[in-house]
Amino acid sequence: MFEKTIKSTSIYKGRMLGLRDDEVELPNGKISHREICEHPGAVAIVPITNDGKIILIRQFRKPIEEVIYEIPAGLINKGEELKDAAVRELEEETGYKANKIEFALTVYTSPGYSTEKLHIFIAKDLVKTQNNPDEDENIEVAITPIDIALQMIKSGEIKDGKTIVGICLVEIK
Amino acid sequence: MFEKTIKSTSIYKGRMLGLRDDEVELPNGKISHREICEHPGAVAIVPITNDGKIILIRQFRKPIEEVIYEIPAGLINKGEELKDAAVRELEEETGYKANKIEFALTVYTSPGYSTEKLHIFIAKDLVKTQNNPDEDENIEVAITPIDIALQMIKSGEIKDGKTIVGICLVEIK
Repeated sequence: MFEKTIKSTSIYKGRMLGLRDDEVELPNGKISHREICEHPGAVAIVPITNDGKIILIRQFRKPIEEVIYEIPAGLINKGEELKDAAVRELEEETGYKANKIEFALTVYTSPGYSTEKLHIFIAKDLVKTQNNPDEDENIEVAITPIDIALQMIKSGEIKDGKTIVGICLVEIK
Repeated sequence: MFEKTIKSTSIYKGRMLGLRDDEVELPNGKISHREICEHPGAVAIVPITNDGKIILIRQFRKPIEEVIYEIPAGLINKGEELKDAAVRELEEETGYKANKIEFALTVYTSPGYSTEKLHIFIAKDLVKTQNNPDEDENIEVAITPIDIALQMIKSGEIKDGKTIVGICLVEIK
C-alpha cells in the first residue's frame, strides 16, 4: 500500500503552515502527486469539572468565518512537553489550572491532506486562577453539562471535529 | 469576536488545496495574520451492515506516512449533490451500494487553519456490487463490529478524527 516519494517540492513555508507537493510512485508503479499541508502539531484538552461538566470555549475562526464551540487547544511550543502544553493552553484559554491531566489519544484531524497530529488530554481537579484569559484570543468560556454537550453534537450546534471526539471520549470511557 | 479581513493574499492554488494569508483586524483593533488552507469540502460515510457492523477501510495516507483505518470519504464532484457523492464514494471505496443514506452532521475537521467542511452520512441497506473497488486507491475493506471499533478507538488503533466521530455518532444516537 505504501507510496514511495520520488520528489518532494516545497511550495510555501509560513509562520504556522507549510505546503508541499510530493510526487509518489503508487504500489502499481503509476506516478501520482499529493498536495500536503504541513502543520506543526497541537494539543487539545477535555476539561471536566468536579461536578461532571465540560469546559467549552467559543471563539471566532477565520477559515470558516464563524464563532464555534470548541474544547481548548493550541500549538506546542518549541521543546515543550505535550502535557505541559496542554496545561498551559487550558489555563490561557479558560483561566483554569488542571491539577490532574492525563493523555487520552492522538488523532489525525485530516490525514488525506494534512500532517497534523492532535494530542488529546483529559483534565480534572480544575482550579480557577484567572478571571480574564488571554485577551487577544477573544474567547468566551461555556461550562456545559455532558448530556447537554451530547445533545449539541446531535443537533449540529457543536461542529468542531476535535470537540466531538473529546466529548465522545468521555462518554464511551 | 468577528475578525474583519483587511487584505486577503492568495499564496497557492493547486489541484485540490489552496493557501492564502488573510490580514485581519481583531475586535480590539489590533492587526494580525491568518494562514488559511483552502479545501473544497468532502463527504464521509458511516456504512452499517444489517447485522450491525461498520464497514471500515484501510489505506495509506502520504501526509502521515501510515496505513490507517477510516470510514469511506472523498471529495464532492463539481455540481454533485452531497448525498450522491456519499453513495458514489461508498461504492468506489468499499464495493457496497447503499439503498438508504441519511445525512447526519457537518463537521469542521480543522477550523483553526482549514476551510474544510466534512458532511457525514449514515448508510444502511447495503448491497455488494463490486468485488474490486477502485484499484488505483489501494484500499482494503475491514468489516468491524461496533463494539470492537469502540475498543479500537480507546486503544489508539483507530486514529482518524472523522472515523472516531462517525463511530461515536452511531454509539450516542
